Amino acid sequence: MPETITDKKTIDVCFSPALLNLYGVKDKIVVVIDILRATSTICVALAYGAKKVIPVKTVEEAKKYKSNGYLVGAERGGKIVKGFTLGNSPFHYMNGQVKDKIIVLTTTNGTRAIENSKDGLKVVMGSFLNLKVLTDWLRKQDQNILLLCAGWKYKFNLEDMFFAGAVVHHLKDDFALIYDAAIAADDLYTANKGKLYTTLKRSSHFQRLASLGIEKDIKYCLTPNQINLIPIWEKDGLVKLGH
Amino acid sequence: MPETITDKKTIDVCFSPALLNLYGVKDKIVVVIDILRATSTICVALAYGAKKVIPVKTVEEAKKYKSNGYLVGAERGGKIVKGFTLGNSPFHYMNGQVKDKIIVLTTTNGTRAIENSKDGLKVVMGSFLNLKVLTDWLRKQDQNILLLCAGWKYKFNLEDMFFAGAVVHHLKDDFALIYDAAIAADDLYTANKGKLYTTLKRSSHFQRLASLGIEKDIKYCLTPNQINLIPIWEKDGLVKLGH
Repeated sequence: MPETITDKKTIDVCFSPALLNLYGVKDKIVVVIDILRATSTICVALAYGAKKVIPVKTVEEAKKYKSNGYLVGAERGGKIVKGFTLGNSPFHYMNGQVKDKIIVLTTTNGTRAIENSKDGLKVVMGSFLNLKVLTDWLRKQDQNILLLCAGWKYKFNLEDMFFAGAVVHHLKDDFALIYDAAIAADDLYTANKGKLYTTLKRSSHFQRLASLGIEKDIKYCLTPNQINLIPIWEKDGLVKLGH
Repeated sequence: MPETITDKKTIDVCFSPALLNLYGVKDKIVVVIDILRATSTICVALAYGAKKVIPVKTVEEAKKYKSNGYLVGAERGGKIVKGFTLGNSPFHYMNGQVKDKIIVLTTTNGTRAIENSKDGLKVVMGSFLNLKVLTDWLRKQDQNILLLCAGWKYKFNLEDMFFAGAVVHHLKDDFALIYDAAIAADDLYTANKGKLYTTLKRSSHFQRLASLGIEKDIKYCLTPNQINLIPIWEKDGLVKLGH
């Protein structure tokens, strides 16, 4: 029997970049989700005028870019990597320094997920910051959608499923809700919306980040619709859609 | 910082056998979950007197056992494999024929998940059929627990997360609920309990099985506490715990 039992466009969720090969992304729009904090931070960098954000997988690559004069952010395990002044906090990208610059970024989870998604028909970044503009745009597209959660070191993570659920929730009138992961994400979001911060406080990643003193980042990243743009993959990096 | 931030025993959930290598199962009790239908059917076979159930990965292995005179069940894509008379339905194992026999079983998802779990300190089978006896036993153990969802062809699946949530829900007073996947599963279960059948009716796997005319199997597999035993891995197969 066919995988798809509907004529409607479909929406599915992949909970780990390690499972992405099961999903066949070539004919899909892939939304990469790492709300704490890479995909939130990328939204911020572009909103504050960065021309492009180039995600790189390794700290070594990041160092090379740095020695060539690029503005480079590097984070591992929630902290700024030694030798760098920018990390993965959205607040690092809010002063004037990113305007008209190309930014290079490497993070524990998000940039790896982006790298893995490059075969997608279109690859965009999702976060609560750009939830409305993102879902308005997705609704108008003709392709099926895959929401890719970056997770934590390839393991499932709560806040990314939560955000995936928010996207599904906003799109389910226009897309067929037939895939188990999308149904589960929608249920989780529906059960917890309105108490987002309290719910996520229970999560291991929240505890990990809170212990590093970045609750301010978390609160900001959970605030919907602060930013009115969609980062999209183009050639070698992420730019503002329709720029 | 340490992975575990608690002195209590922990409980975690892995949503795909393809991610199991991230979890380090050697010091954990692994509960394999494939409620539709392998782990339910294994409970039934042992309850109806089978001495042992040997799960095998491939149809070829199953055929070899069959030609050596074993009673063999083989299922792929929800259906009995051609050339076999037993499949993955619990009802196939309820007549007198399994009593005192060794059963060999190969299924699309469940038997592969069991095979992948063999390094666990103890490996047991979970289903709604044995929910109470299983959680009563797990509560008394001193080790951390990993609930492994078999999923559908390595993808996430709703009913296995749902059952994992039921287990977490029953154990959360005795175990630390710090892992994101366990928190999400508990939330999903809590949001949907009491309307289990309706909830799962939305799932793709349900639709797949229903289209094969086995709604009777599904209803049975969703009925808690029909069976008072726990299948546990011992040497080369699954036997009744404490037999």
